Amino acid sequence: MPRYKITVEYDGSFFCGWQRQRSDAREFETCPAQKTIFDTTQQRSVQGTLEHALRKITGENVLVEGAGRTDAGVHALAQCAHFDLTEPIDPHRLIGGLNFFTSPHACVVLNAQVVAPIFHARFSATSREYLYKISNRRSPLALDRGRAWHVSRPLDVTKIKTYAQDFLGHHNFNAFRASACQSHSPMKTLDVFDVVAAGEMIECRVKARSFLHNQVRIMIGTLVWIGLGKYEGEAVKQLLTSGTRTAAGPTAPAHGLYLSAVNYAKPDIEEKTFDGASA
Amino acid sequence: MPRYKITVEYDGSFFCGWQRQRSDAREFETCPAQKTIFDTTQQRSVQGTLEHALRKITGENVLVEGAGRTDAGVHALAQCAHFDLTEPIDPHRLIGGLNFFTSPHACVVLNAQVVAPIFHARFSATSREYLYKISNRRSPLALDRGRAWHVSRPLDVTKIKTYAQDFLGHHNFNAFRASACQSHSPMKTLDVFDVVAAGEMIECRVKARSFLHNQVRIMIGTLVWIGLGKYEGEAVKQLLTSGTRTAAGPTAPAHGLYLSAVNYAKPDIEEKTFDGASA
Repeated sequence: MPRYKITVEYDGSFFCGWQRQRSDAREFETCPAQKTIFDTTQQRSVQGTLEHALRKITGENVLVEGAGRTDAGVHALAQCAHFDLTEPIDPHRLIGGLNFFTSPHACVVLNAQVVAPIFHARFSATSREYLYKISNRRSPLALDRGRAWHVSRPLDVTKIKTYAQDFLGHHNFNAFRASACQSHSPMKTLDVFDVVAAGEMIECRVKARSFLHNQVRIMIGTLVWIGLGKYEGEAVKQLLTSGTRTAAGPTAPAHGLYLSAVNYAKPDIEEKTFDGASA
Repeated sequence: MPRYKITVEYDGSFFCGWQRQRSDAREFETCPAQKTIFDTTQQRSVQGTLEHALRKITGENVLVEGAGRTDAGVHALAQCAHFDLTEPIDPHRLIGGLNFFTSPHACVVLNAQVVAPIFHARFSATSREYLYKISNRRSPLALDRGRAWHVSRPLDVTKIKTYAQDFLGHHNFNAFRASACQSHSPMKTLDVFDVVAAGEMIECRVKARSFLHNQVRIMIGTLVWIGLGKYEGEAVKQLLTSGTRTAAGPTAPAHGLYLSAVNYAKPDIEEKTFDGASA
């Protein structure tokens, strides 16, 4: 029963998020077996789309576990997930088969590999990377609509770059988590917060072992308020100390956020060839 | 009767091209006055969308002249156009008014300015620049779907870069024009052909005073065939000499192409302030 790791790219505009949605009652009555597999909400989930494709390929109900749950509208350049198949399938054939069913829905499998049975997309991850795009210009967006946060008033990028550095290190991020966040501890360590402006586009890249719910979007929302001059003094440091969510900035829109990488320790992946021998 | 120059960004996926489409018979019967203004085809044109917005703002039928006609699916980062208004409108208000009507249709006015009455978006242009994006990877595209040409077989980018230089200079581009091309002469001078690969994305930038119909797309199609190893020897030079369209490569898809700039000589624009005095 081989375990597979897949890397997935998707356009979040077309999904209600990563997580499979509960079937509505009618669907459940007519086909109970599909309860846990199919989305019956208006918009499909990424997980549900992948599980649907695997059911089409294998005829079985396969559970796909993601590295993290992206919210509705959040994009992924390289989300990772794992699942087990009863019968082995050559990874290249598997990629082709999955994409046949998922690519019409703006979800594409970039890579698939057989991994050790102990590998877990979520728990084996050593770090996660996100990209957040802000388009800072007066005019609305035609080409980047739904792909970047449009901020029409001029931002002080130098100020944003400077204050972003205050997020680095081990802090209590209680002011930067959603009220629905289920994490036991608000303590997180941020390893990278790069801010690069190219023309009107500002790209922020963050990296940490893990993030709280909405942490990236609230950090970005706060930095945009800083860039607009809405805070004075040591705003980020004070917010980290106070831990008050209501004092922090708004949650930046989901459509500017991209899950850009999930990293694993080499031994945890234990890359294997198709026949099960270590590569 | 002031003349305005506008710069426009649009997502070509939502348009049947720049040029206004003829009304269908039924529409013509019911409202003859709208014949030249409104698109009644399934997809709207960029020109028609802008003219519709101007009619909403001014109550008049305004003719919008573009720097060039982009085909269906071709995007623009900075298309230029001009038009005359009976009553002057402050450029900033004009931008806001136009975007109110056009931005829901993935067409956005980036800039507007009053120009000299002799300015002509098409005839005053001294050069045009295009960007062509190729995504060279095995998997289909989720995020760049409709924004880049997906070439799934590996391309030899070094070869593409080398052969692209053969297009530079003054040549007979007869082999690189659409059969429907209405240009009197196939002689054109190409000033720039830059090819830059970043990861799986290959970006080609070209610049010339003007281009033949489909010239950029056929040059790109030919270079992709060269990158796939379908030509031997001095392919580009031979094609330029032979002038045979059928010997050249395919016309690359419209959705990888972006009109990225239209340049004008400063005196031709003769930038003016709102009250008509030279700035």
